[in-house]
Amino acid sequence: MYKIGIADTTFARYDMAKEVIKTLDKFYGQVTYQRYVVPGIKDLPVASFILFEKYNCDLVIALGMPGPKAYDKASAQIASEGLMMCQLKFGKHILEVFVHEDEGSTDYELKQIMQDRSIKHTFNAVYLLTNPQWLVDNAGRGKRQGFTDAKAIE
Amino acid sequence: MYKIGIADTTFARYDMAKEVIKTLDKFYGQVTYQRYVVPGIKDLPVASFILFEKYNCDLVIALGMPGPKAYDKASAQIASEGLMMCQLKFGKHILEVFVHEDEGSTDYELKQIMQDRSIKHTFNAVYLLTNPQWLVDNAGRGKRQGFTDAKAIE
Amino acid sequence: MYKIGIADTTFARYDMAKEVIKTLDKFYGQVTYQRYVVPGIKDLPVASFILFEKYNCDLVIALGMPGPKAYDKASAQIASEGLMMCQLKFGKHILEVFVHEDEGSTDYELKQIMQDRSIKHTFNAVYLLTNPQWLVDNAGRGKRQGFTDAKAIE
Amino acid sequence: MYKIGIADTTFARYDMAKEVIKTLDKFYGQVTYQRYVVPGIKDLPVASFILFEKYNCDLVIALGMPGPKAYDKASAQIASEGLMMCQLKFGKHILEVFVHEDEGSTDYELKQIMQDRSIKHTFNAVYLLTNPQWLVDNAGRGKRQGFTDAKAIE
Amino acid sequence: MYKIGIADTTFARYDMAKEVIKTLDKFYGQVTYQRYVVPGIKDLPVASFILFEKYNCDLVIALGMPGPKAYDKASAQIASEGLMMCQLKFGKHILEVFVHEDEGSTDYELKQIMQDRSIKHTFNAVYLLTNPQWLVDNAGRGKRQGFTDAKAIE
Repeated sequence: MYKIGIADTTFARYDMAKEVIKTLDKFYGQVTYQRYVVPGIKDLPVASFILFEKYNCDLVIALGMPGPKAYDKASAQIASEGLMMCQLKFGKHILEVFVHEDEGSTDYELKQIMQDRSIKHTFNAVYLLTNPQWLVDNAGRGKRQGFTDAKAIE
Repeated sequence: MYKIGIADTTFARYDMAKEVIKTLDKFYGQVTYQRYVVPGIKDLPVASFILFEKYNCDLVIALGMPGPKAYDKASAQIASEGLMMCQLKFGKHILEVFVHEDEGSTDYELKQIMQDRSIKHTFNAVYLLTNPQWLVDNAGRGKRQGFTDAKAIE
Repeated sequence: MYKIGIADTTFARYDMAKEVIKTLDKFYGQVTYQRYVVPGIKDLPVASFILFEKYNCDLVIALGMPGPKAYDKASAQIASEGLMMCQLKFGKHILEVFVHEDEGSTDYELKQIMQDRSIKHTFNAVYLLTNPQWLVDNAGRGKRQGFTDAKAIE
Repeated sequence: MYKIGIADTTFARYDMAKEVIKTLDKFYGQVTYQRYVVPGIKDLPVASFILFEKYNCDLVIALGMPGPKAYDKASAQIASEGLMMCQLKFGKHILEVFVHEDEGSTDYELKQIMQDRSIKHTFNAVYLLTNPQWLVDNAGRGKRQGFTDAKAIE
Repeated sequence: MYKIGIADTTFARYDMAKEVIKTLDKFYGQVTYQRYVVPGIKDLPVASFILFEKYNCDLVIALGMPGPKAYDKASAQIASEGLMMCQLKFGKHILEVFVHEDEGSTDYELKQIMQDRSIKHTFNAVYLLTNPQWLVDNAGRGKRQGFTDAKAIE
């Protein structure tokens, strides 16, 4: 039985964790989860740290929604660096599921991206832990999260 | 009883720590605090280190006010990186409360942003330690500090 | 007998690992390999960590294909930082074989770059482990991977 | 008795350490110092490391003068990152006293900035070690080094 | 007897290590050296790690020649970050001798820069280990490597 950590924020404008949890429910009996909510994306690395150390999670899904301004982009870069440092401290994956507010031009489009990305990365998380062969079978296939897959070059 | 560290600078043009302390006073009996003042934002990571290691704080609120020039932006990026490294050394949250001088166009506006951001992040700090359910209840709700909240996408 | 780790992604649009494996087969008896596939380039540092720690690899070849957008460039920078941190944790080489999607103007050109870079870096990997004198002999010779060599200055 | 480390470079066009030492002499009996000179700003982090580890300094003042080109700005960023990593390794302050060559338009102006910044940061260094209350009393007061103070917002 | 490590690449278009070795020969009996060649600049940090850990070098000279494209500049930044991390792991100097391909407009000019920078930094390396007073005597004197010295401000 694997335990997946979910770290998310009050800053995000959509509750992506809801999509993650709904998807994890399909794997009932195989994976369980622990959720930890923080104010903003820069707080996700410590959230992940705590999910690994205190809650013994095997992998963390970190959900965030950086704003469109230069300052927000800088925050996203720092948050990503922190998630990287945390991963290399524990030797465990943190799947970064960030949706930049300027990736969609309407709230409807943004919501589509957030749902698609959250769901597909939840599958990635489960496969990394329980079925790595799925990833080998899809290596170099142009898989995308948030959008339709890119064309693979044969 | 939790202890919150407050790290702030002589460089900032407003005493944000005053707002933090006033807000913490509402939680008398639940949280106590320790303050440590440094010259500039790049000195906040070691201030936080000392607040964690020497003063045994459970969480640090780091207050800073980066200037508007390219050089100041670069300093803010380094300061944020340092706060991130420090957080991942101790596995404890540092809430970064930075107000960039170009976020407001007048001193009055800047002061409003600084007060609002300091107060709301102090609540975040207390809730992270004493009432994490508040954060879960507000996940994905577009909470903002310094400004009014953003619209949540249902 | 040396063991080379291969870390690659489902995001890439071409299966570069295939080229690496084909090249490693020329060194049958001298080197063996272990493959680990992840969703995207930011997941390669932990993949490398696991290849070093769990699978005892002596060197890792990390294959990735960053997209052309500013966001992709930022991801590539974080991925590279993570690969660097991982290398300095273990004191072992990770050869970063990234092909940026805008390095080629057609899929055909991209494929040529990916094949050439993958193959040449596989030779580099093997030489680093088994024949460092080859690298000394080629020091300062303008060797390029993905393109023809640059002119050496005598 | 506190010991302050002084790290400076042969690259700088002015001997800022001279100003630091002159200022430290005012605190004879309270602080002593150790100097370590390196070629350029990227060498200051190891200089600080050695001043902490070998010479047991309590705080380091790192003096540098980055050039005006993009390449110099990138070097200054790396140097600052290194000073940050070093601070968080030892949990001790390094006051970064960098004067960018483009901060002044004449050599005379540059010299004024370098003198003012070196002297004021030496006072900061001494106060951090011996009189932290001075910093508390000046928190949020818009203190500047190299220029006159900014206006505080009441 | 000090041991200096030399790390260089097959990517560079000129054999700068040759200049370093020729210069070190002037210090026969005082310093010895160990060379380690890698494919590109991002591989220099692990080369330095190995020169420190396996070969017990006291200092490393890292030679590289980043290309002129944005991608190359990003690689140089990562390489520098890695060299910084490695220095702070061992508390020993790595003198970064990078010559950017766009620093010279002709191959002849580039070669002049590479020779001058390699030779002068080899002297810096030897002085750091055997004659630190030379650096103190030249502090703030505008010393340059690759070009003539800048004017010192008295």
